[in-house]
Amino acid sequence: MEREHLVRIEKLQAAMAAANIDAVFLYSPINRLYFTGLTTSNGLLLVERQGTPVFYTDFRYLEVAHRVLKGIEIRKFKPAKEQLADYAGFARMWKSVGYEGTLAVAQFLPLQEAMSSVRLTSVSSLISTLRGVKSPTEIDAIRRSAAANDALFAELMETFRPGISELEMLRQFRMKEAARGLTESFDPILCAGTNAVECHHRPDATVLQPNSELLIDMGVMVDGYCSDMTRTVFFGTPTPRFREIFDIVLEANRAVIAAVRPGIRCCDIDKVARDIIDRYGYGAAFDHGLGHSVGLEIHEMPSFSKTCETVLEPGMVLTDEPGIYLPGEVGVRIEDLLVVTENGCEVLSHTPHEIVLPC
Amino acid sequence: MEREHLVRIEKLQAAMAAANIDAVFLYSPINRLYFTGLTTSNGLLLVERQGTPVFYTDFRYLEVAHRVLKGIEIRKFKPAKEQLADYAGFARMWKSVGYEGTLAVAQFLPLQEAMSSVRLTSVSSLISTLRGVKSPTEIDAIRRSAAANDALFAELMETFRPGISELEMLRQFRMKEAARGLTESFDPILCAGTNAVECHHRPDATVLQPNSELLIDMGVMVDGYCSDMTRTVFFGTPTPRFREIFDIVLEANRAVIAAVRPGIRCCDIDKVARDIIDRYGYGAAFDHGLGHSVGLEIHEMPSFSKTCETVLEPGMVLTDEPGIYLPGEVGVRIEDLLVVTENGCEVLSHTPHEIVLPC
Repeated sequence: MEREHLVRIEKLQAAMAAANIDAVFLYSPINRLYFTGLTTSNGLLLVERQGTPVFYTDFRYLEVAHRVLKGIEIRKFKPAKEQLADYAGFARMWKSVGYEGTLAVAQFLPLQEAMSSVRLTSVSSLISTLRGVKSPTEIDAIRRSAAANDALFAELMETFRPGISELEMLRQFRMKEAARGLTESFDPILCAGTNAVECHHRPDATVLQPNSELLIDMGVMVDGYCSDMTRTVFFGTPTPRFREIFDIVLEANRAVIAAVRPGIRCCDIDKVARDIIDRYGYGAAFDHGLGHSVGLEIHEMPSFSKTCETVLEPGMVLTDEPGIYLPGEVGVRIEDLLVVTENGCEVLSHTPHEIVLPC
Repeated sequence: MEREHLVRIEKLQAAMAAANIDAVFLYSPINRLYFTGLTTSNGLLLVERQGTPVFYTDFRYLEVAHRVLKGIEIRKFKPAKEQLADYAGFARMWKSVGYEGTLAVAQFLPLQEAMSSVRLTSVSSLISTLRGVKSPTEIDAIRRSAAANDALFAELMETFRPGISELEMLRQFRMKEAARGLTESFDPILCAGTNAVECHHRPDATVLQPNSELLIDMGVMVDGYCSDMTRTVFFGTPTPRFREIFDIVLEANRAVIAAVRPGIRCCDIDKVARDIIDRYGYGAAFDHGLGHSVGLEIHEMPSFSKTCETVLEPGMVLTDEPGIYLPGEVGVRIEDLLVVTENGCEVLSHTPHEIVLPC
């Protein structure tokens, strides 16, 4: 265990004390990774308000757990009934126990039954709050992830041309990504022409045409941390209509970068972009949130949405991705990754916003 | 919607009628894919015992849903409270409603509250039963997936040699996979030397040495269907100890292939392998199940385990993967993908079991 992870557990225990929670059951691979640094498909990190956490796992991961998790107690899962009986025993010393909102009902209900005397409470937002503010080590990883994404994007721009299908672009994306030793943080979105109006289009046989647009939404992972960026590229001479929509989206994207700083609520940042797009009459064509946090997962909290009242703090990392989608006509999204700093924000995506290529 | 998917929904409705369930809420992307053929990150397939199912999704996927899901009603999700009020209204006509055991507690609890008068029941095993028996179309996809995995494995064997690290092998795996237009069905497991004793080892900087073993557990996806295969290769002259363990594992693997046929319980097949390994005195070193079903997901039900009493039927597709792991010494696993036929099984993995390469 690195110091970083022990500090995270200490912060969790402090938050548990503040919320009067005696123990938390962390089953999700992602939270177990966040608090221990170890990735396993199966396991439970059981953290009490005080003392040494216990990591339960099965036969397959005991070897690696003992090697990596110094400072944490490691136990092998017993058969389900015995394991639940153990929890029931521990629960005699607990009043309030936290669970993750993502926990599967099939795992939750037996826990609920075994610990019927304790109050079960979701710790999802408590953990989101901890994970929402990234440490310098995390920001460094995300910065390198965004840089790797920029470099991969630049390499793709050398070969993507009209005449290539979305599926062939996907194949090229994955070959170049693999050659760089990278994995993707989500399935890349490659939308040729009017496919760009489907914000989450899946690559298909559509061939990129001359004098048309290509929307690319992509991200990679570096040291476990995600990046995320969208560019809407034009091959040939942009049509006046594309130009018009592109400029509005870019204005919204830039206004957000200028507005982000500690102390502002996420919903107010969302409004900055929405007001601009509304003013030009395209509000109804921007029917998704402005952005989301990024970290170990591609979608984390807080988010730039109409309803998120979280106040920005230094170290939060979010996307700024306004878009306008006009069915059958044109779709534009421009997305940057931002980290909130002491007095504003740093843009981690360094790819130019406007890219016009020959066809 | 293809006929295949409509038939699956009809079978689900028949199973619901038999189990006296009025409606099922299918939130998981994988079950929505199974019953509709459409992949979206967000959605709900609401199936009543009779009539046309309803597919709910958000703004991002309405376009594609309308294009692909002919024969299903498509609705846009309302804001959470209104949506829950709708369910509460429908629930007046329902007595029993099914949910997926994988559903997140955070989604389940509000549903439970909104439909407090109905009996909520897990449909996980009902759906596993449907998905456990693959259609000819599915078996064809899995067969092609296994063939693509064989071909990729053969290509890798041309370049993997002592002197290469696990991480470099991973990079080569991903480049070759991408060049073939494939994605992996799980993170490949590449264990050089004694790393093979960790069944789910993650590739690291360990360099493959001359006169040592390499355990490779890999699978790809074709048309959405997974494959899965493990081989334990030796570079140089196998040591007597490796030879001994390898031969026992291979004997267990082959005995399973000979034993699989309709009408036998999964646990009895697990026992076939376990008895052989026990007889040689290595029972304690085979501390995982013999195998699992494979389909849209890499781990499906039923499984070859001590406790799975499911009776084999034609069309079930499972792995046969006995292993022996002796810490610090030698680890061997040999895994094939099998499809149960009318009177036995067909082995879908065609890579030779014994591979000895020069070093």
